[in-house]
Amino acid sequence: MSARSYDVVIVGAGLSGLSAARHLLKKNSSLRVLLLEGKDRVGGRTMSSKLPAAQGKDVWDLGGQWVGSSQMYVMDLIRELGLETYPQYTAGKKVYHMGGPRAKVRTYTNSLPSMSLLTLLDLKHFQWQIDRMSQSLSMEDPTSAPRALEYDSMTLSSYMDKKIWTQSLRMDIELCTRSLFGMEPSQISFLYFLMYCRAAGGILHLLETTPGSAQESRIKGGTQQLSEKLADQIGRENIHLNSAVLEIQQGPEGAVVRTRLDTFSCRAVIVTCPPHLAAQIQYVPALPPARQRLTQSMPVGHMIKFIVTYRTAFWRTNGFSGEIVVQPSSDCPFCITFDATSPRGNPGLVGFISGAQANDWSYKTVEDRRDAVIQSLVKYLGPEASDFIHYAEKDWAKEEYNGGCPVNVMVPGMLTYYHPSLRRPCGRIHWAGTETATHWCGYMSGAIQSGLRAALEVLERLSPKVLSQEELQEAQASTTHTLPHRSWDLAPQKTYLPVCLTVTTVTLGVALLLANPCLYNEMIEQGSAFLQKFGFWC
Amino acid sequence: MSARSYDVVIVGAGLSGLSAARHLLKKNSSLRVLLLEGKDRVGGRTMSSKLPAAQGKDVWDLGGQWVGSSQMYVMDLIRELGLETYPQYTAGKKVYHMGGPRAKVRTYTNSLPSMSLLTLLDLKHFQWQIDRMSQSLSMEDPTSAPRALEYDSMTLSSYMDKKIWTQSLRMDIELCTRSLFGMEPSQISFLYFLMYCRAAGGILHLLETTPGSAQESRIKGGTQQLSEKLADQIGRENIHLNSAVLEIQQGPEGAVVRTRLDTFSCRAVIVTCPPHLAAQIQYVPALPPARQRLTQSMPVGHMIKFIVTYRTAFWRTNGFSGEIVVQPSSDCPFCITFDATSPRGNPGLVGFISGAQANDWSYKTVEDRRDAVIQSLVKYLGPEASDFIHYAEKDWAKEEYNGGCPVNVMVPGMLTYYHPSLRRPCGRIHWAGTETATHWCGYMSGAIQSGLRAALEVLERLSPKVLSQEELQEAQASTTHTLPHRSWDLAPQKTYLPVCLTVTTVTLGVALLLANPCLYNEMIEQGSAFLQKFGFWC
Repeated sequence: MSARSYDVVIVGAGLSGLSAARHLLKKNSSLRVLLLEGKDRVGGRTMSSKLPAAQGKDVWDLGGQWVGSSQMYVMDLIRELGLETYPQYTAGKKVYHMGGPRAKVRTYTNSLPSMSLLTLLDLKHFQWQIDRMSQSLSMEDPTSAPRALEYDSMTLSSYMDKKIWTQSLRMDIELCTRSLFGMEPSQISFLYFLMYCRAAGGILHLLETTPGSAQESRIKGGTQQLSEKLADQIGRENIHLNSAVLEIQQGPEGAVVRTRLDTFSCRAVIVTCPPHLAAQIQYVPALPPARQRLTQSMPVGHMIKFIVTYRTAFWRTNGFSGEIVVQPSSDCPFCITFDATSPRGNPGLVGFISGAQANDWSYKTVEDRRDAVIQSLVKYLGPEASDFIHYAEKDWAKEEYNGGCPVNVMVPGMLTYYHPSLRRPCGRIHWAGTETATHWCGYMSGAIQSGLRAALEVLERLSPKVLSQEELQEAQASTTHTLPHRSWDLAPQKTYLPVCLTVTTVTLGVALLLANPCLYNEMIEQGSAFLQKFGFWC
Repeated sequence: MSARSYDVVIVGAGLSGLSAARHLLKKNSSLRVLLLEGKDRVGGRTMSSKLPAAQGKDVWDLGGQWVGSSQMYVMDLIRELGLETYPQYTAGKKVYHMGGPRAKVRTYTNSLPSMSLLTLLDLKHFQWQIDRMSQSLSMEDPTSAPRALEYDSMTLSSYMDKKIWTQSLRMDIELCTRSLFGMEPSQISFLYFLMYCRAAGGILHLLETTPGSAQESRIKGGTQQLSEKLADQIGRENIHLNSAVLEIQQGPEGAVVRTRLDTFSCRAVIVTCPPHLAAQIQYVPALPPARQRLTQSMPVGHMIKFIVTYRTAFWRTNGFSGEIVVQPSSDCPFCITFDATSPRGNPGLVGFISGAQANDWSYKTVEDRRDAVIQSLVKYLGPEASDFIHYAEKDWAKEEYNGGCPVNVMVPGMLTYYHPSLRRPCGRIHWAGTETATHWCGYMSGAIQSGLRAALEVLERLSPKVLSQEELQEAQASTTHTLPHRSWDLAPQKTYLPVCLTVTTVTLGVALLLANPCLYNEMIEQGSAFLQKFGFWC
């Protein structure tokens, strides 16, 4: 075979692929490892760019930007690579404008906006339910949870219809869903939503800027440095950029990986790109139906991220934190903004256009989006917002070899049937990427966790001697994961007692009345006497 | 450019692509049209095979097999090509075995199995609702329907939870969903289900064997003849088999279509393969996000079809029609069977293993599946079933350049946002395939309709003079279809009156009781007196 030969070929040089490569080489430096990346850069869904700023130029993240102290895999890597974090700025008033453009613009300084007692009760009830249900889930096998099939048969939106009492909380949760997934509640399996909360340690962890939460800190100099530094350690010669993988062919001797110009043979492959991109690779022989079905049903979110740089952090002077939470409208494209002032003191704001809103606004020009963003910033933070230095934006749906951000979700009715295919290797192919993580799935930390796990699996196959007993067990756990045990013989249970009782009561009642019409008058009399006692009768 | 040059390249030589090609050439015989097909045969999801039979060999359909008189596009084509149909055999007892393996096996001869009054009422209510709602849908723009967003935010399963009273009807509808889509009710958008019913002219049309329904007749000699005869008319030299399209590149001068070995330039492309396969082609420049998102969210069903041939149609002699409706169990892989005796009189039965059940059984060997099928046929039709001539099966999920059958569905929350991308051309690329049909979408007739429509669109672009005024208008309708008009400014309405009234009543009641505890005793007395009158108190 004329193909160049490696031990392991890794598809994708994002945090997951780079972490996998480094771990493979750390455990066994004699392994020949190659990374193939479609883009012209490393970093995947992280991308740090130099933008015009108050003091010349400075770095901002146009992709993943926040880390939290509970995200142990990314925090470990930050320490190892000698990087530093700094906290998200949160002091001052936050703007809250829900209920449409004509609703009152409100501000708040606590972690929650001021809300009616009913909405607050509603929120606490919702949060309590989500946390209680998600805590009972196993991340390794979410299909084993008591009501897994029921929860996976409904969208998050259907669950909200059932359990949320107030329109205001409904709109808040819709906004949170857009901000978290770049998707609408109608597009996500409720069981997947629970899994996602579980992986982060609770729903509030996903939403807040408090210690341990997803928006706690940022990395000085940008998050892409993680990937750049990993790439330096692995050796740039082992990373081929502009090399999208078109085909992976497996045989008894090994695997052959094809890009447009090259062919590589290897003993194992780690595919780290998100499911919808992994689905675009041609596999010979074809992957098992369940794996195909899984990747056909994991759409990716749509997010446009923007950074606006300023001469002064005028919002801080005006008493604002820079955080704006706003319901989509035809005036305002974004759903959320935050302060993005750099550690060197260059003022900036960051915001997101998300979900269906991102789709609608993606058909307009960048100038239209910029003008609408600036106009809304003026409305919420003051006229100084119009005097910006630079507006930068990134529509991740239009980035080649990406197609969306921040994460792929699962649609209803797939998890319960096809979840085991998420991590189960297919022959010589192992699966990584943040979507396969069990801890902070969808985040940088999850990407790193998944890379380390896939590296362990490959080491168990290629050089098990370098692994400890504990590592061997960990590696085997994902490869031996079996099909969910479904009992077709048991019909799903549903209690029709209330319906039957109501039907019986009404039928009996009507029959009695038909048999003896004067009962009706008596009933009315009794009933009105009863109600008059309590002052309910006019 | 060294690429061979054509006017139109059509991706896929199924019924849709072949119909498009023939229509293009019929209207303008000077057009240079090329069809590229990944498989080694024409016909797409239709495939007729010679199988060992009572009188030597005979032809059976391992793919799409039924047609109905209301499916005008396929009926027209059958007539034009000089083919003949014959009715589905339905005389005799049908077997109905729902409720698990230990439930009683029942038989019926009408169009509906005998059911309790409550289940019958439930069915009629469900059918009335579905037909009423689906009739109000516009196939051109289903997002304009009154409650489109609400219906698209839930799965068919969630709708069933809300509206179906009896467990037995629920199981029946689950079975119908599996048989129709190869998917579970939890995997389908309810709005999509309504659209699908609308395209067929009502839910019963989809399910029955009566005149006008989907299972009314079969084509003598098999359905693949349609494609073979079309291919003969178009000219086999214009159809390249084993030529999967990898990339479509568009520029100001035209489009370039690449297979592994060849490159073709053209002025227009028609992509006819199902959405999940269309998604695997690399598009340069990338397709608009909404189109990408649509194809990421249209998974294909999973069906394994089997044919068992016999020396005698023993089931007919025993008074059975050959139709068995059975709930999935670990014993019985299939959910439905029919008589499949050939027009030449060679006896046979046809059946389907569908949905999640197909996934589970696809991991077993063909021998295991065969033995389980035969054992179940023995159980339901008699011991003669074990004396079969041949068992043939086709797992469409494992067919290359197919990946599933019979149709791609839409998952919740996609239709309302991305539906306009289903047929709207992307530059020089036009979309066909049965999933884009507005009449009998998902069926052979829909495939033909979509091919004719795409051909019209291309003719409007390349040689509008050959089209009548009516055809020009028809062609423009799909290309000018706009984005759905969403009003972000209007918050969705929801009535919280019942909740508020309940909360107020309970709160008032509790407050009154707390204020005057003796009221409680009085209430109990009044209440028991009231109930004793009607004999409800023990």
